Amino acid sequence: MQAMDIEKVNSMDFGEFVDVFGNVIERCPLIAAAVWSQRPFSNLEDLEKHFFDFIDALPQSGREGILRCHPDLAGRELQQGTLSAESRREQSGAGLTSLDADERLRLAELNAQYRARFGFPFVLAARRSHRAAVPRELARRLRCPPAQELRTALAEVKKIGHLRLADLLGAPPARL
Amino acid sequence: MQAMDIEKVNSMDFGEFVDVFGNVIERCPLIAAAVWSQRPFSNLEDLEKHFFDFIDALPQSGREGILRCHPDLAGRELQQGTLSAESRREQSGAGLTSLDADERLRLAELNAQYRARFGFPFVLAARRSHRAAVPRELARRLRCPPAQELRTALAEVKKIGHLRLADLLGAPPARL
Repeated sequence: MQAMDIEKVNSMDFGEFVDVFGNVIERCPLIAAAVWSQRPFSNLEDLEKHFFDFIDALPQSGREGILRCHPDLAGRELQQGTLSAESRREQSGAGLTSLDADERLRLAELNAQYRARFGFPFVLAARRSHRAAVPRELARRLRCPPAQELRTALAEVKKIGHLRLADLLGAPPARL
Repeated sequence: MQAMDIEKVNSMDFGEFVDVFGNVIERCPLIAAAVWSQRPFSNLEDLEKHFFDFIDALPQSGREGILRCHPDLAGRELQQGTLSAESRREQSGAGLTSLDADERLRLAELNAQYRARFGFPFVLAARRSHRAAVPRELARRLRCPPAQELRTALAEVKKIGHLRLADLLGAPPARL
């Protein structure tokens, strides 16, 4: 995907917009499709703000629902080759596609504990992490209170969305 | 997919639930993933009510967003073989997979006019229709006021969802 400017974004019909931005929030094309209603956008920050405002306005079940559309890190979908292109690239960037059997098993156990405790999968902006840090961070977050962890996980969703939008618009990502 | 009873549904973890019910609302697994928060469900009607309540509570942009996740009838995705399994079955049931070139062209023109007028695609519970009725109904709805048409289109989304849920739970669909 070639980088584009905001005029190009504002000229898109909804079909094109959903094709391009449908996975800014993992497996939630509904959100991009809703954001199209808010065009024109003045710049990347403005476009991003509409994605995040939509998320924040959802009831708690909807915000949990967004998390439940995410794959486990180094999980079944990576093994089966059914990750989204963006997620595959991000997990690969963090070295999660080349774990040895022990590392994979350890992460699978932690992922299962996390899912059982919180009712959603562990979400992390993997591109900003690396294979050794992921299980440490997972183990740490596993001990957080549920309400705090929901906030943390949604902040990670937004970091992922920020990086994906910056990729699409060819902008250097802001500090997170 | 074998039919299942409500106890089976209530025993699902969120991964299984989203696998099974993720396309009750076309390409909006977020909605099934949110509905899982409301378990246990007392029966099919109760489960369905949670899907519909979630839709109704969305802001207008979100309700339009749901529509924008739907494919055109007899459109590009049918030609390219990228329809969801449910949508392919429904369009096929209405005879839309075997249109001749003139019928396809006529429908493509009407679909384009509809998208340009309303900012979302024409959505119809195709399984309850047939190939001759579809362009007539499209031409009729093309003349409706936008606010009324949004309500009509969302009522079709719910009919589709009702039929898909009834399939999954092995229940005879209620009169619509």
